[in-house]
Amino acid sequence: MPGPQRADARRNRARILAVAEREVAAHGGAASLERIARTAGVGSATVRRHFPGRRALLEAVSHSRIEALCARARDLAGEGDSRSALLEWLGDVVAYSVSARGLAETLVHEGAGPGSVYENSCSAMMEEAGDPLLRRAVRDGAVAAGVTVTDLITLVVGIVLATEHHPDPAASADRLFRLAVAGLGPRS
Amino acid sequence: MPGPQRADARRNRARILAVAEREVAAHGGAASLERIARTAGVGSATVRRHFPGRRALLEAVSHSRIEALCARARDLAGEGDSRSALLEWLGDVVAYSVSARGLAETLVHEGAGPGSVYENSCSAMMEEAGDPLLRRAVRDGAVAAGVTVTDLITLVVGIVLATEHHPDPAASADRLFRLAVAGLGPRS
Repeated sequence: MPGPQRADARRNRARILAVAEREVAAHGGAASLERIARTAGVGSATVRRHFPGRRALLEAVSHSRIEALCARARDLAGEGDSRSALLEWLGDVVAYSVSARGLAETLVHEGAGPGSVYENSCSAMMEEAGDPLLRRAVRDGAVAAGVTVTDLITLVVGIVLATEHHPDPAASADRLFRLAVAGLGPRS
Repeated sequence: MPGPQRADARRNRARILAVAEREVAAHGGAASLERIARTAGVGSATVRRHFPGRRALLEAVSHSRIEALCARARDLAGEGDSRSALLEWLGDVVAYSVSARGLAETLVHEGAGPGSVYENSCSAMMEEAGDPLLRRAVRDGAVAAGVTVTDLITLVVGIVLATEHHPDPAASADRLFRLAVAGLGPRS
Protein backbone atom coordinates (compact mmCIF):
# COMPACT_ATOMS: atom_id res chain seq x y z
CA MET A 1 0.00 0.00 0.00
CA PRO A 2 1.54 3.33 -1.01
CA GLY A 3 2.21 5.57 1.99
CA PRO A 4 1.92 9.36 2.09
CA GLN A 5 5.63 9.76 1.24
CA ARG A 6 5.22 7.81 -1.96
CA ALA A 7 2.14 9.82 -2.95
CA ASP A 8 4.13 13.03 -2.29
CA ALA A 9 6.94 11.77 -4.51
CA ARG A 10 4.46 10.95 -7.28
CA ARG A 11 2.93 14.41 -7.05
CA ASN A 12 6.39 16.03 -7.14
CA ARG A 13 7.38 13.99 -10.17
CA ALA A 14 4.17 14.90 -12.01
CA ARG A 15 4.59 18.60 -11.14
CA ILE A 16 8.24 18.66 -12.30
CA LEU A 17 7.26 16.90 -15.51
CA ALA A 18 4.39 19.31 -16.23
CA VAL A 19 6.65 22.33 -15.70
CA ALA A 20 9.40 20.71 -17.79
CA GLU A 21 6.97 20.13 -20.67
CA ARG A 22 6.14 23.84 -20.79
CA GLU A 23 9.79 24.89 -20.47
CA VAL A 24 10.99 22.45 -23.15
CA ALA A 25 8.20 23.57 -25.50
CA ALA A 26 9.37 27.18 -25.00
CA HIS A 27 13.16 26.74 -24.87
CA GLY A 28 13.91 23.34 -26.38
CA GLY A 29 16.48 20.93 -24.97
CA ALA A 30 18.43 23.80 -23.40
CA ALA A 31 15.64 24.57 -20.89
CA SER A 32 17.05 25.54 -17.48
CA LEU A 33 16.82 22.75 -14.89
CA GLU A 34 17.14 25.32 -12.07
CA ARG A 35 14.19 27.26 -13.44
CA ILE A 36 12.15 24.07 -13.76
CA ALA A 37 12.89 23.20 -10.11
CA ARG A 38 12.03 26.73 -8.93
CA THR A 39 8.77 26.90 -10.92
CA ALA A 40 7.76 23.44 -9.70
CA GLY A 41 8.44 24.59 -6.12
CA VAL A 42 11.01 21.90 -5.37
CA GLY A 43 14.77 21.84 -4.81
CA SER A 44 17.34 20.82 -7.40
CA ALA A 45 18.04 17.67 -5.35
CA THR A 46 14.41 16.60 -5.74
CA VAL A 47 14.59 17.09 -9.51
CA ARG A 48 17.80 15.02 -9.60
CA ARG A 49 16.21 12.27 -7.48
CA HIS A 50 13.39 11.86 -10.01
CA PHE A 51 15.41 12.62 -13.14
CA PRO A 52 19.13 11.96 -12.80
CA GLY A 53 20.29 14.49 -15.40
CA ARG A 54 19.01 16.54 -18.30
CA ARG A 55 18.76 13.59 -20.66
CA ALA A 56 16.51 11.64 -18.29
CA LEU A 57 14.22 14.65 -17.89
CA LEU A 58 14.06 15.33 -21.65
CA GLU A 59 13.27 11.69 -22.28
CA ALA A 60 10.49 11.76 -19.71
CA VAL A 61 9.05 14.92 -21.32
CA SER A 62 9.16 13.33 -24.77
CA HIS A 63 7.67 10.13 -23.43
CA SER A 64 4.81 11.96 -21.79
CA ARG A 65 3.99 14.01 -24.87
CA ILE A 66 4.27 10.98 -27.12
CA GLU A 67 1.83 9.17 -24.87
CA ALA A 68 -0.58 12.04 -25.51
CA LEU A 69 -0.05 11.66 -29.28
CA CYS A 70 -0.75 7.94 -28.99
CA ALA A 71 -3.96 8.63 -27.08
CA ARG A 72 -4.93 11.05 -29.88
CA ALA A 73 -4.33 8.31 -32.46
CA ARG A 74 -6.65 5.97 -30.53
CA ASP A 75 -9.36 8.65 -30.41
CA LEU A 76 -9.05 9.32 -34.15
CA ALA A 77 -9.06 5.62 -35.10
CA GLY A 78 -12.84 5.44 -35.03
CA GLU A 79 -13.59 8.92 -36.29
CA GLY A 80 -14.90 10.12 -39.68
CA ASP A 81 -13.00 9.83 -42.93
CA SER A 82 -9.96 7.56 -42.64
CA ARG A 83 -7.66 9.74 -44.77
CA SER A 84 -8.55 12.87 -42.80
CA ALA A 85 -8.04 11.04 -39.50
CA LEU A 86 -4.56 9.86 -40.58
CA LEU A 87 -3.58 13.31 -41.88
CA GLU A 88 -4.88 15.03 -38.76
CA TRP A 89 -2.77 12.74 -36.59
CA LEU A 90 0.34 13.20 -38.75
CA GLY A 91 -0.23 16.95 -38.62
CA ASP A 92 -0.22 16.69 -34.80
CA VAL A 93 3.03 14.72 -35.00
CA VAL A 94 4.57 17.45 -37.19
CA ALA A 95 3.41 20.26 -34.87
CA TYR A 96 4.62 18.42 -31.79
CA SER A 97 7.98 17.56 -33.35
CA VAL A 98 8.55 21.18 -34.33
CA SER A 99 7.77 22.38 -30.82
CA ALA A 100 9.89 19.71 -29.16
CA ARG A 101 12.99 20.66 -31.09
CA GLY A 102 15.16 18.04 -29.41
CA LEU A 103 12.84 15.15 -30.21
CA ALA A 104 13.51 14.80 -33.91
CA GLU A 105 17.24 14.33 -33.31
CA THR A 106 16.44 11.90 -30.52
CA LEU A 107 14.28 9.86 -32.87
CA VAL A 108 16.93 9.89 -35.59
CA HIS A 109 19.68 8.76 -33.28
CA GLU A 110 17.66 6.36 -31.19
CA GLY A 111 18.59 2.78 -31.65
CA ALA A 112 22.13 3.83 -32.60
CA GLY A 113 23.21 2.67 -29.15
CA PRO A 114 22.09 1.98 -25.61
CA GLY A 115 21.90 4.65 -22.94
CA SER A 116 18.24 5.56 -23.05
CA VAL A 117 15.92 4.04 -20.48
CA TYR A 118 13.21 4.07 -23.14
CA GLU A 119 15.49 2.66 -25.85
CA ASN A 120 13.50 2.66 -29.08
CA SER A 121 10.21 3.12 -27.32
CA CYS A 122 9.40 6.59 -28.75
CA SER A 123 9.51 5.44 -32.35
CA ALA A 124 7.93 2.10 -31.47
CA MET A 125 5.06 3.73 -29.55
CA MET A 126 4.32 6.19 -32.35
CA GLU A 127 4.46 3.50 -34.99
CA GLU A 128 2.16 1.24 -33.00
CA ALA A 129 -0.29 4.09 -32.41
CA GLY A 130 -0.32 5.27 -36.03
CA ASP A 131 -0.59 1.82 -37.57
CA PRO A 132 -4.38 1.36 -37.17
CA LEU A 133 -4.96 4.81 -38.72
CA LEU A 134 -2.79 3.95 -41.71
CA ARG A 135 -4.29 0.46 -42.15
CA ARG A 136 -7.80 1.88 -42.20
CA ALA A 137 -6.81 4.50 -44.80
CA VAL A 138 -5.13 1.85 -46.98
CA ARG A 139 -8.16 -0.43 -46.64
CA ASP A 140 -10.37 2.45 -47.83
CA GLY A 141 -8.10 2.98 -50.85
CA ALA A 142 -7.25 6.46 -49.58
CA VAL A 143 -3.54 5.76 -49.18
CA ALA A 144 -1.34 3.69 -51.46
CA ALA A 145 -0.66 0.13 -50.24
CA GLY A 146 3.00 -0.36 -49.34
CA VAL A 147 3.33 2.90 -47.41
CA THR A 148 4.36 2.14 -43.82
CA VAL A 149 4.00 4.15 -40.61
CA THR A 150 7.79 4.09 -40.37
CA ASP A 151 7.96 5.82 -43.79
CA LEU A 152 5.54 8.50 -42.65
CA ILE A 153 7.23 9.18 -39.32
CA THR A 154 10.70 9.22 -40.90
CA LEU A 155 9.43 11.72 -43.46
CA VAL A 156 7.99 13.92 -40.70
CA VAL A 157 11.26 13.75 -38.74
CA GLY A 158 13.22 14.71 -41.87
CA ILE A 159 10.96 17.65 -42.63
CA VAL A 160 11.32 18.91 -39.06
CA LEU A 161 15.11 18.57 -39.15
CA ALA A 162 15.41 20.35 -42.50
CA THR A 163 13.25 23.29 -41.45
CA GLU A 164 14.38 23.84 -37.85
CA HIS A 165 16.61 26.78 -38.82
CA HIS A 166 13.95 28.45 -40.98
CA PRO A 167 12.52 31.79 -39.79
CA ASP A 168 9.15 30.10 -39.08
CA PRO A 169 9.88 26.38 -38.63
CA ALA A 170 6.26 25.44 -37.93
CA ALA A 171 4.99 27.07 -41.14
CA SER A 172 7.82 25.63 -43.26
CA ALA A 173 7.33 22.14 -41.85
CA ASP A 174 3.58 22.31 -42.41
CA ARG A 175 4.09 23.47 -46.01
CA LEU A 176 6.53 20.66 -46.82
CA PHE A 177 4.37 18.07 -45.10
CA ARG A 178 1.39 19.09 -47.26
CA LEU A 179 3.61 18.94 -50.35
CA ALA A 180 4.71 15.39 -49.51
CA VAL A 181 1.12 14.32 -48.82
CA ALA A 182 -0.10 15.76 -52.13
CA GLY A 183 2.90 14.58 -54.15
CA LEU A 184 4.50 16.57 -56.93
CA GLY A 185 1.68 16.38 -59.39
CA PRO A 186 -0.04 14.02 -61.86
CA ARG A 187 1.20 10.44 -61.66
CA SER A 188 3.17 9.19 -64.59
CA MET B 1 50.95 35.37 -68.02
CA PRO B 2 50.88 32.37 -65.65
CA GLY B 3 54.35 30.98 -65.10
CA PRO B 4 55.18 27.29 -64.57
CA GLN B 5 54.94 27.69 -60.79
CA ARG B 6 51.35 28.85 -61.00
CA ALA B 7 50.45 25.98 -63.36
CA ASP B 8 52.03 23.56 -60.86
CA ALA B 9 49.97 25.07 -58.08
CA ARG B 10 46.79 24.70 -60.12
CA ARG B 11 47.59 21.07 -60.87
CA ASN B 12 48.29 20.39 -57.19
CA ARG B 13 45.04 21.99 -56.15
CA ALA B 14 43.06 19.97 -58.70
CA ARG B 15 44.80 16.74 -57.64
CA ILE B 16 44.17 17.36 -53.93
CA LEU B 17 40.53 18.16 -54.67
CA ALA B 18 40.03 15.02 -56.79
CA VAL B 19 41.53 12.82 -54.05
CA ALA B 20 39.49 14.65 -51.38
CA GLU B 21 36.27 14.02 -53.32
CA ARG B 22 36.90 10.27 -53.28
CA GLU B 23 37.93 10.25 -49.61
CA VAL B 24 34.95 12.33 -48.51
CA ALA B 25 32.58 10.11 -50.51
CA ALA B 26 34.06 7.06 -48.73
CA HIS B 27 34.56 8.43 -45.20
CA GLY B 28 32.42 11.56 -44.94
CA GLY B 29 33.55 14.75 -43.26
CA ALA B 30 35.97 12.84 -41.04
CA ALA B 31 38.23 11.91 -44.00
CA SER B 32 41.92 12.02 -43.05
CA LEU B 33 43.74 15.11 -44.33
CA GLU B 34 47.09 13.32 -43.97
CA ARG B 35 45.85 10.47 -46.15
CA ILE B 36 44.54 12.92 -48.73
CA ALA B 37 47.95 14.66 -48.88
CA ARG B 38 49.79 11.33 -49.14
CA THR B 39 47.50 9.97 -51.88
CA ALA B 40 47.74 13.23 -53.83
CA GLY B 41 51.54 13.00 -53.57
CA VAL B 42 51.96 16.37 -51.82
CA GLY B 43 52.98 17.46 -48.32
CA SER B 44 50.57 18.57 -45.60
CA ALA B 45 51.89 22.13 -45.98
CA THR B 46 50.79 22.16 -49.63
CA VAL B 47 47.30 20.98 -48.66
CA ARG B 48 47.13 23.74 -46.02
CA ARG B 49 48.33 26.36 -48.52
CA HIS B 50 45.45 25.55 -50.87
CA PHE B 51 42.85 24.71 -48.21
CA PRO B 52 43.52 26.36 -44.83
CA GLY B 53 41.74 23.71 -42.70
CA ARG B 54 39.26 20.87 -42.97
CA ARG B 55 36.27 23.16 -43.42
CA ALA B 56 37.81 24.90 -46.44
CA LEU B 57 38.60 21.55 -48.05
CA LEU B 58 35.13 20.13 -47.38
CA GLU B 59 33.54 23.26 -48.82
CA ALA B 60 35.67 23.01 -51.93
CA VAL B 61 34.67 19.35 -52.33
CA SER B 62 30.98 20.19 -51.94
CA HIS B 63 31.33 23.11 -54.29
CA SER B 64 32.97 20.99 -56.96
CA ARG B 65 30.36 18.24 -56.75
CA ILE B 66 27.52 20.75 -56.70
CA GLU B 67 28.96 22.33 -59.84
CA ALA B 68 28.69 18.89 -61.45
CA LEU B 69 25.04 18.65 -60.34
CA CYS B 70 24.36 22.09 -61.82
CA ALA B 71 25.93 21.03 -65.13
CA ARG B 72 23.68 17.95 -65.05
CA ALA B 73 20.63 20.19 -64.58
CA ARG B 74 21.62 22.25 -67.64
CA ASP B 75 22.01 19.07 -69.72
CA LEU B 76 18.61 17.78 -68.60
CA ALA B 77 16.84 21.11 -69.21
CA GLY B 78 16.38 20.40 -72.89
CA GLU B 79 15.87 16.66 -72.68
CA GLY B 80 12.70 14.55 -73.11
CA ASP B 81 9.76 14.62 -70.74
CA SER B 82 9.90 17.57 -68.30
CA ARG B 83 8.65 15.61 -65.28
CA SER B 84 11.17 12.82 -65.87
CA ALA B 85 13.97 15.35 -66.33
CA LEU B 86 13.12 17.06 -63.01
CA LEU B 87 12.79 13.75 -61.16
CA GLU B 88 16.03 12.44 -62.61
CA TRP B 89 17.87 15.54 -61.44
CA LEU B 90 16.31 15.41 -57.97
CA GLY B 91 17.24 11.73 -57.79
CA ASP B 92 20.85 12.73 -58.50
CA VAL B 93 20.63 15.34 -55.74
CA VAL B 94 19.35 12.66 -53.32
CA ALA B 95 22.09 10.19 -54.29
CA TYR B 96 24.80 12.82 -54.05
CA SER B 97 23.53 14.14 -50.70
CA VAL B 98 23.49 10.62 -49.24
CA SER B 99 27.05 9.99 -50.38
CA ALA B 100 28.32 13.38 -49.20
CA ARG B 101 27.10 12.85 -45.66
CA GLY B 102 28.35 16.19 -44.45
CA LEU B 103 26.60 18.21 -47.12
CA ALA B 104 23.06 17.94 -45.85
CA GLU B 105 24.02 19.42 -42.47
CA THR B 106 26.02 22.12 -44.25
CA LEU B 107 22.98 23.05 -46.31
CA VAL B 108 20.75 23.11 -43.24
CA HIS B 109 23.10 25.34 -41.27
CA GLU B 110 24.28 27.55 -44.08
CA GLY B 111 23.16 31.09 -43.84
CA ALA B 112 22.98 30.80 -40.05
CA GLY B 113 26.18 32.87 -39.92
CA PRO B 114 29.27 33.95 -41.81
CA GLY B 115 32.47 31.92 -41.93
CA SER B 116 32.10 30.13 -45.24
CA VAL B 117 33.90 31.51 -48.28
CA TYR B 118 30.98 30.30 -50.36
CA GLU B 119 28.36 31.69 -47.95
CA ASN B 120 24.96 30.52 -49.22
CA SER B 121 26.30 29.58 -52.58
CA CYS B 122 25.61 25.81 -52.38
CA SER B 123 21.88 26.26 -51.84
CA ALA B 124 21.75 29.22 -54.22
CA MET B 125 23.60 27.36 -56.98
CA MET B 126 21.38 24.30 -56.68
CA GLU B 127 18.22 26.38 -56.62
CA GLU B 128 19.29 28.35 -59.66
CA ALA B 129 20.21 25.18 -61.54
CA GLY B 130 17.00 23.34 -60.67
CA ASP B 131 14.67 26.25 -61.36
CA PRO B 132 14.45 25.87 -65.19
CA LEU B 133 13.69 22.14 -64.75
CA LEU B 134 10.90 22.90 -62.30
CA ARG B 135 9.44 25.76 -64.39
CA ARG B 136 9.27 23.57 -67.47
CA ALA B 137 7.50 20.80 -65.51
CA VAL B 138 5.02 23.28 -64.03
CA ARG B 139 4.40 24.80 -67.49
CA ASP B 140 3.65 21.31 -68.82
CA GLY B 141 1.15 20.77 -65.98
CA ALA B 142 3.31 17.90 -64.72
CA VAL B 143 4.01 19.51 -61.33
CA ALA B 144 1.60 21.54 -59.21
CA ALA B 145 2.03 25.32 -59.50
CA GLY B 146 3.26 26.84 -56.26
CA VAL B 147 5.92 24.20 -55.61
CA THR B 148 9.35 25.87 -55.40
CA VAL B 149 12.87 24.51 -55.92
CA THR B 150 13.57 25.50 -52.31
CA ASP B 151 10.70 23.22 -51.21
CA LEU B 152 12.11 20.33 -53.21
CA ILE B 153 15.69 20.75 -52.03
CA THR B 154 14.62 21.21 -48.40
CA LEU B 155 12.58 18.02 -48.68
CA VAL B 156 15.56 16.13 -50.11
CA VAL B 157 17.84 17.46 -47.36
CA GLY B 158 15.30 16.38 -44.71
CA ILE B 159 14.96 12.90 -46.17
CA VAL B 160 18.75 12.50 -46.21
CA LEU B 161 19.07 13.70 -42.60
CA ALA B 162 16.28 11.41 -41.37
CA THR B 163 17.71 8.30 -43.04
CA GLU B 164 21.45 8.77 -42.50
CA HIS B 165 21.53 6.30 -39.59
CA HIS B 166 19.47 3.66 -41.42
CA PRO B 167 21.20 0.39 -42.34
CA ASP B 168 21.06 1.32 -46.04
CA PRO B 169 20.72 5.14 -46.17
CA ALA B 170 20.71 5.32 -49.98
CA ALA B 171 17.84 2.83 -50.29
CA SER B 172 15.83 4.44 -47.47
CA ALA B 173 16.29 7.94 -48.90
CA ASP B 174 15.31 6.78 -52.37
CA ARG B 175 12.19 5.08 -51.01
CA LEU B 176 11.05 8.15 -49.09
CA PHE B 177 11.82 10.46 -51.98
CA ARG B 178 9.61 8.36 -54.26
CA LEU B 179 6.88 8.40 -51.62
CA ALA B 180 6.99 12.21 -51.41
CA VAL B 181 6.95 12.52 -55.21
CA ALA B 182 3.94 10.20 -55.50
CA GLY B 183 2.12 11.63 -52.49
CA LEU B 184 0.09 9.56 -50.05
CA GLY B 185 -2.73 8.60 -52.38
CA PRO B 186 -5.89 9.97 -54.00
CA ARG B 187 -6.31 13.73 -53.55
CA SER B 188 -9.18 14.79 -51.37
